Amino acid sequence: MVEIMNNPMNEPRYCGIPTFMRTPQSTDLNGLDIALVGVPYDGAVEARSGARQGPRQIRDMSSMMRAIHHVTRVNPYKLCRIADVGDVHFNQIFDVVASHIDITDFYKRLHDFGIVPLSAGGDHSITLPILRAITADHPVGLVQIDAHTDCCDEEMNSKYSHGTPFRRAVEEGILDPKRTIQIGIRGAANPDECWEFGPKHGIRIVYIEEFTKLGVEKVIREVRRVVGVGPTYVSFDIDSIDPSFAPGTGTPEIGGITTIEAQGLIRGLRGSNLVGADVVEVSPPFDASGNTALIAATIMYEILCILAEKIYSEAKREKD
Amino acid sequence: MVEIMNNPMNEPRYCGIPTFMRTPQSTDLNGLDIALVGVPYDGAVEARSGARQGPRQIRDMSSMMRAIHHVTRVNPYKLCRIADVGDVHFNQIFDVVASHIDITDFYKRLHDFGIVPLSAGGDHSITLPILRAITADHPVGLVQIDAHTDCCDEEMNSKYSHGTPFRRAVEEGILDPKRTIQIGIRGAANPDECWEFGPKHGIRIVYIEEFTKLGVEKVIREVRRVVGVGPTYVSFDIDSIDPSFAPGTGTPEIGGITTIEAQGLIRGLRGSNLVGADVVEVSPPFDASGNTALIAATIMYEILCILAEKIYSEAKREKD
Amino acid sequence: MVEIMNNPMNEPRYCGIPTFMRTPQSTDLNGLDIALVGVPYDGAVEARSGARQGPRQIRDMSSMMRAIHHVTRVNPYKLCRIADVGDVHFNQIFDVVASHIDITDFYKRLHDFGIVPLSAGGDHSITLPILRAITADHPVGLVQIDAHTDCCDEEMNSKYSHGTPFRRAVEEGILDPKRTIQIGIRGAANPDECWEFGPKHGIRIVYIEEFTKLGVEKVIREVRRVVGVGPTYVSFDIDSIDPSFAPGTGTPEIGGITTIEAQGLIRGLRGSNLVGADVVEVSPPFDASGNTALIAATIMYEILCILAEKIYSEAKREKD
Amino acid sequence: MVEIMNNPMNEPRYCGIPTFMRTPQSTDLNGLDIALVGVPYDGAVEARSGARQGPRQIRDMSSMMRAIHHVTRVNPYKLCRIADVGDVHFNQIFDVVASHIDITDFYKRLHDFGIVPLSAGGDHSITLPILRAITADHPVGLVQIDAHTDCCDEEMNSKYSHGTPFRRAVEEGILDPKRTIQIGIRGAANPDECWEFGPKHGIRIVYIEEFTKLGVEKVIREVRRVVGVGPTYVSFDIDSIDPSFAPGTGTPEIGGITTIEAQGLIRGLRGSNLVGADVVEVSPPFDASGNTALIAATIMYEILCILAEKIYSEAKREKD
Amino acid sequence: MVEIMNNPMNEPRYCGIPTFMRTPQSTDLNGLDIALVGVPYDGAVEARSGARQGPRQIRDMSSMMRAIHHVTRVNPYKLCRIADVGDVHFNQIFDVVASHIDITDFYKRLHDFGIVPLSAGGDHSITLPILRAITADHPVGLVQIDAHTDCCDEEMNSKYSHGTPFRRAVEEGILDPKRTIQIGIRGAANPDECWEFGPKHGIRIVYIEEFTKLGVEKVIREVRRVVGVGPTYVSFDIDSIDPSFAPGTGTPEIGGITTIEAQGLIRGLRGSNLVGADVVEVSPPFDASGNTALIAATIMYEILCILAEKIYSEAKREKD
Amino acid sequence: MVEIMNNPMNEPRYCGIPTFMRTPQSTDLNGLDIALVGVPYDGAVEARSGARQGPRQIRDMSSMMRAIHHVTRVNPYKLCRIADVGDVHFNQIFDVVASHIDITDFYKRLHDFGIVPLSAGGDHSITLPILRAITADHPVGLVQIDAHTDCCDEEMNSKYSHGTPFRRAVEEGILDPKRTIQIGIRGAANPDECWEFGPKHGIRIVYIEEFTKLGVEKVIREVRRVVGVGPTYVSFDIDSIDPSFAPGTGTPEIGGITTIEAQGLIRGLRGSNLVGADVVEVSPPFDASGNTALIAATIMYEILCILAEKIYSEAKREKD
Repeated sequence: MVEIMNNPMNEPRYCGIPTFMRTPQSTDLNGLDIALVGVPYDGAVEARSGARQGPRQIRDMSSMMRAIHHVTRVNPYKLCRIADVGDVHFNQIFDVVASHIDITDFYKRLHDFGIVPLSAGGDHSITLPILRAITADHPVGLVQIDAHTDCCDEEMNSKYSHGTPFRRAVEEGILDPKRTIQIGIRGAANPDECWEFGPKHGIRIVYIEEFTKLGVEKVIREVRRVVGVGPTYVSFDIDSIDPSFAPGTGTPEIGGITTIEAQGLIRGLRGSNLVGADVVEVSPPFDASGNTALIAATIMYEILCILAEKIYSEAKREKD
Repeated sequence: MVEIMNNPMNEPRYCGIPTFMRTPQSTDLNGLDIALVGVPYDGAVEARSGARQGPRQIRDMSSMMRAIHHVTRVNPYKLCRIADVGDVHFNQIFDVVASHIDITDFYKRLHDFGIVPLSAGGDHSITLPILRAITADHPVGLVQIDAHTDCCDEEMNSKYSHGTPFRRAVEEGILDPKRTIQIGIRGAANPDECWEFGPKHGIRIVYIEEFTKLGVEKVIREVRRVVGVGPTYVSFDIDSIDPSFAPGTGTPEIGGITTIEAQGLIRGLRGSNLVGADVVEVSPPFDASGNTALIAATIMYEILCILAEKIYSEAKREKD
Repeated sequence: MVEIMNNPMNEPRYCGIPTFMRTPQSTDLNGLDIALVGVPYDGAVEARSGARQGPRQIRDMSSMMRAIHHVTRVNPYKLCRIADVGDVHFNQIFDVVASHIDITDFYKRLHDFGIVPLSAGGDHSITLPILRAITADHPVGLVQIDAHTDCCDEEMNSKYSHGTPFRRAVEEGILDPKRTIQIGIRGAANPDECWEFGPKHGIRIVYIEEFTKLGVEKVIREVRRVVGVGPTYVSFDIDSIDPSFAPGTGTPEIGGITTIEAQGLIRGLRGSNLVGADVVEVSPPFDASGNTALIAATIMYEILCILAEKIYSEAKREKD
Repeated sequence: MVEIMNNPMNEPRYCGIPTFMRTPQSTDLNGLDIALVGVPYDGAVEARSGARQGPRQIRDMSSMMRAIHHVTRVNPYKLCRIADVGDVHFNQIFDVVASHIDITDFYKRLHDFGIVPLSAGGDHSITLPILRAITADHPVGLVQIDAHTDCCDEEMNSKYSHGTPFRRAVEEGILDPKRTIQIGIRGAANPDECWEFGPKHGIRIVYIEEFTKLGVEKVIREVRRVVGVGPTYVSFDIDSIDPSFAPGTGTPEIGGITTIEAQGLIRGLRGSNLVGADVVEVSPPFDASGNTALIAATIMYEILCILAEKIYSEAKREKD
Repeated sequence: MVEIMNNPMNEPRYCGIPTFMRTPQSTDLNGLDIALVGVPYDGAVEARSGARQGPRQIRDMSSMMRAIHHVTRVNPYKLCRIADVGDVHFNQIFDVVASHIDITDFYKRLHDFGIVPLSAGGDHSITLPILRAITADHPVGLVQIDAHTDCCDEEMNSKYSHGTPFRRAVEEGILDPKRTIQIGIRGAANPDECWEFGPKHGIRIVYIEEFTKLGVEKVIREVRRVVGVGPTYVSFDIDSIDPSFAPGTGTPEIGGITTIEAQGLIRGLRGSNLVGADVVEVSPPFDASGNTALIAATIMYEILCILAEKIYSEAKREKD
Repeated sequence: MVEIMNNPMNEPRYCGIPTFMRTPQSTDLNGLDIALVGVPYDGAVEARSGARQGPRQIRDMSSMMRAIHHVTRVNPYKLCRIADVGDVHFNQIFDVVASHIDITDFYKRLHDFGIVPLSAGGDHSITLPILRAITADHPVGLVQIDAHTDCCDEEMNSKYSHGTPFRRAVEEGILDPKRTIQIGIRGAANPDECWEFGPKHGIRIVYIEEFTKLGVEKVIREVRRVVGVGPTYVSFDIDSIDPSFAPGTGTPEIGGITTIEAQGLIRGLRGSNLVGADVVEVSPPFDASGNTALIAATIMYEILCILAEKIYSEAKREKD
């Protein structure tokens, strides 16, 4: 591990080589609890690209993050060993299936070390190969915050675009549709099969209209009802957030959730049985102000606090 | 009509020469139900200009739109014949009155074919010559969503600026003030006559403060009460939306409505007797992210669904 | 005073050398009631800089302001004598303490003339030297709208950064912590002393979560309860506003208040005993659209209406 | 005149209300030698607009200028009395002819005081009404640095667009075509009459290809040969400069002159009989970096040095 | 073909649905001489993407073009029948080889009609499938203006990236290396095989250093010597131009050629036996000012003039 | 040192945590030949700030660099051991003198290890404390490429601004003025003492006018004549480059050198006795396209090749 001379958390925020949250950079996986990972891949996008540059910009803006959460007073760095393990290494970037194998390989290694991954995409297709790596034994539940269901069958004659991962995951038996909830769905479609697949298999969709009517607290109750106590993955597509907050994404849909609502949703997961999470579809070329990346970094920090508490309390329970 | 080899709706969103909503481009007006029109004119602006470039950028971003509405499941392209008929042709652009005549001429031709126009401006002065063309017989009612009343008497010693169209329309007898409602009004004025003219003639103003207090549903009820069942025009000034969503406009006013509220307002018009609509004041030079144009395109799509349903059900009623 | 040939309020908004609100520029302080002041200083910032350019950009965007408030119908220029007195003159800009002395000197002169200052920053450190100038006799109360408490003890080993002014002001006895309320506080910290100092001394903190729960009206009641009838200063840090509205600031925190909420808060101060105000931390290099400066200018205008009413009614009372 | 407490030339460049070159703002014309004027008008543009915002942005960037020229060591502020007299006041902005009358009126007043104007546009149509004001007795010669001849007969059926001023000026007898040289001309046309009019009347056109071949020094010799010793006006269209340097303009043409070449051309006018000058077509909405305005400000400063030397030496000659 | 009511060349440049150069849009290939084609494909890029959006932005900026060339006075639209035939239709976008087949199919159809294609990319990989379509009988010569040789063997383990097309074309026997010249090459490499392949097979490389030393005229002579009188293709990679002119590209290399030099090079091809051309690697997300697209459009116009003259004189010769 | 699993040079350029040139990050100084260092400090700037963010953005863009120089075929990574040693650690950022001590301390440690530093600023004041660290025994010569001499006596009453470092260095006896050459100087001044100090002490100034006249090759000869064979430092202020290339800087001056000229100048130093170098004044907030940082990274790479060759040949000589 790199020898850190000064606590980078106390440095001016523009100083230093940017790792996620200014955590130490590490290639040594021993003893890590949570790995912060970049997945600079957007080869499965049929709209505007650029999410390949997401991890870098999120790392840069994540220097704005600090240690102690202002609501829960949790300091995740006191509870767990957390490091930036760098980006997934790709042998291939021009073939979606081959690239997905590279991703799965990387996460399998983390999984073998018992490390919980918190990732920054990349396009939404990356969640499929991540799930393949971390669901060896049984399917996981899913909290998906997103403008789109990403349950199409095909896009541009391909089974593996960023509009299809959760349909594939259900078909592959690594995602439990009955323990899956999709929040913030909106925008016209073409055709409507992307909305039909989920409910047919038991996925709970909370369209933005229902979201607005229910409010965050009731949606959280619905989330907890759906995912229950089983292992659950969180996938946060930045396009769930309204594009006034998060313009830096490939397929923006107006009329989205606010950041206060998003933070509320994540905090509502406190105590859930989370096994990993990702924040995807940040496309820096469309994010002139950097606000999209700042949101992504903050959402990652919010999730990190939840993950760290969960791992810490489990470890404590085991010890006791 | 252009021979379309592939369904452009299924193409990647960045492909093809951009027409509004990727509809076919047509100069043949026979058989059209709804015409999508661009009015690249901003010669009546006394603040920042640029709305002349609005139609182009809205066309570009409108490729993001798809066919089926996620709430109503309406597919307007199945209900009506819809085409992009191009931009108004101007013989003159340096004289406001002459330019307005060019606009009226263009819309008269559409009106003669019985086509309902859905337009993208251009500054707000364009609504006056459009109304002149489509209100041959009797004045229309108006749902105006806007930060400003645009009921001044003069700006910079001119009767025909983008701050005066609805006062002129009332004076010309083509707008029925008693069937007119203005929503989202706010911002200081100088002098206050722009707020006094409307109420004096029966126009209902919903200032942003009342809007916030009532909420979208009650405002919709008020809208329907005001416009009733008579022929009604919808004029959507993009500056009604808060500039955090829609910075690309000439005279932004902070403290505006959200896109969710705007979408709610439009959806509340379902079943109204709409005879035309426009979305105006999108100024691309101030819209670096393209979000303003995306909102304009989405609002046009929302209106298109309402218009198509109305025309379809009327046609069906006639047939039955 | 400059001879004004035409009323600049009626000019197109892009015309003329930009003073705050298009008020006359004046170096003659006799007879002024309210001075609009620029403080182009950001030497106490440990994050992203640029607030030194704030006064210029706010002046430029403030041309969008007009005279009569659309809710209260107050025209401040009819009630008081208001002028732009230019920027604080700095003899030194590389030493925080020396620069603060330059600021205090400038405001002392205004104070000697009995002028109420309404200022545009600059970073938040400037409020400390302003308070030093205008609290000769007794400490003031404070309404601070901000993402951060700015009550740290030190940043980067300095007692006088933009994260410390209100702690210093309490220590110096010029700020009454029991009559101080901080609204909109959020974001992680590092360490948590910045949140502990205030409450320990009686400062009332309304975190964003409480703010959201209470709503604007109840927060206003809390504000009025805290500050009472004593002399009160208003310090508005633009980072209180969510960065989707106000990206142009050095340390943005997602999940902030909206502009409608901010306007509501200011209007809630009507009738309070205000002795000065500032709007700080606008950093133009991060404000490509100019929306941050537009918000700052509008908030200044909202405060100006409150200040003018207060001064006018006091003057009237005295006369009667 | 405003009482200036400190020499604004020595202030940090971001301080103070921005006048041209940080000169004093003055409405008192007595005793002035050179007036810096803004002409915020772009109503005669048939392409992208925005030049109405030019004077403000040029004033802002002109704070970067300092006093002493690094080649000639001239300090114009020591040689002449120079002030920023503000912007032309417009009674009308929606009618080109009426707006031009407002411009002429403003400059006539300057001319009556014997003041030499150095102006910042605005679109190129403004040069015509300026020439009308300052050529009372006899036509002037012209050094026009430009991508276009601006000698069309009509644009969009108008005689008074920004593409026609010099044809009109020749026709009105206020511009001597035989003492006129146009430098940097390029770009396709439609039709070619804009290139034919000039040579037919004796105007010397130096196309960019000839410019490149000759080099700056030989072009200067040609300039001096053409304009001779008679009274000469300089009109600098910023689109003469290549758009890599100056993107902020309405009708950019690639393949333009460099700033070094432009500075060389201006310096080559030293000793000429200049009676006024303008820099036009700076359109801030297309100038994100501000570089176009910086160039305009620097060209104005270069011209100012030439003008001041000329006026100073004339005055000295008279005195002797 | 679309019925054109007004000559779009005479419209204000912001009017109308943007086709390349405002030519008529056509799907009818009969009688066309030159087809303007968009190839919105960037799936073979290993650096920053975005060139998929190139054709749209180039079409938009190409409205700035007019008809008559200012040097040659050629009006291509008088010499040939020219139309915008739209974009290549893709059945597949996620597999480079399959996408290339879609491209070849589209161009074969043009080739069958005897139409000369002038294309806008897209990444540089598209030139390979275009050459496959138009070199049925024998290999072509090539004038490649580019920062990179694009003669790598593999990138990211793929034979078909945008860094390999000309090596593949030589290997496939459709490009004659002895009639190939590459101009503007520069930038470090990793490894150096990309520089070695060409010379080994007879390709003439003019590095930027030699280019600067020789000057445009001598380079043109070298070009004409290399390509001779055989059929020749022109491939213009926008990254040949210095990124100060053309920032909107994926792999910018500083120290490039100027636009004046680029225009000179194209004009030097007058009279050559050109059989097609493309302008590639314009990436709008990195082209905030639009200048890169403006350059691409102008280079296309310059090539169009050369192509039209060549086709016209051939047709005339045949007729005579 | 971080274990590097894959050669980052072969990764797609957007992958990985960005170090300078994708070199390994190291805190272990043993055995290093050249250290790449970031100095994120801009506290001595009296104009626009932002250079504190320079090292991060330069690191990001430096991923565009590759290994082998296309002219010299030098691969610096084969000749020397090169690493990114991170940023200077600051204990203080609000006091210029204290901050400079932090810088000197950092470089002294590098100097003690015999490591040659190649740095990215930061404002130009940083060169002074760097020189203090590496000139223990005798003053160095200097090749300064810059728009300004930075030889003022004071700015804003401070001896240690970014406009004074080289005057201080001469006074402190660590810079030999007779072996100092300043290239690219231009722009007005206020007063002219900044131009007088240097020549009075023997510094050779090449103003931009002389530079243009001489051309790069003759300037190189002059450089080599001035600095001779003694130890020489290279300080490259990015504002030497014309702002069309490099807008991202605090005090841009139009009419600067081109990147081809800058690359030529650096290559002309081949074989000189260089003991260190820096590239300063890159201000990312004003560098929307990233081109300024790309230039800085490329200039650093060009210098790196020169440094590596020099160190390698010395080492070889010693061995022989």
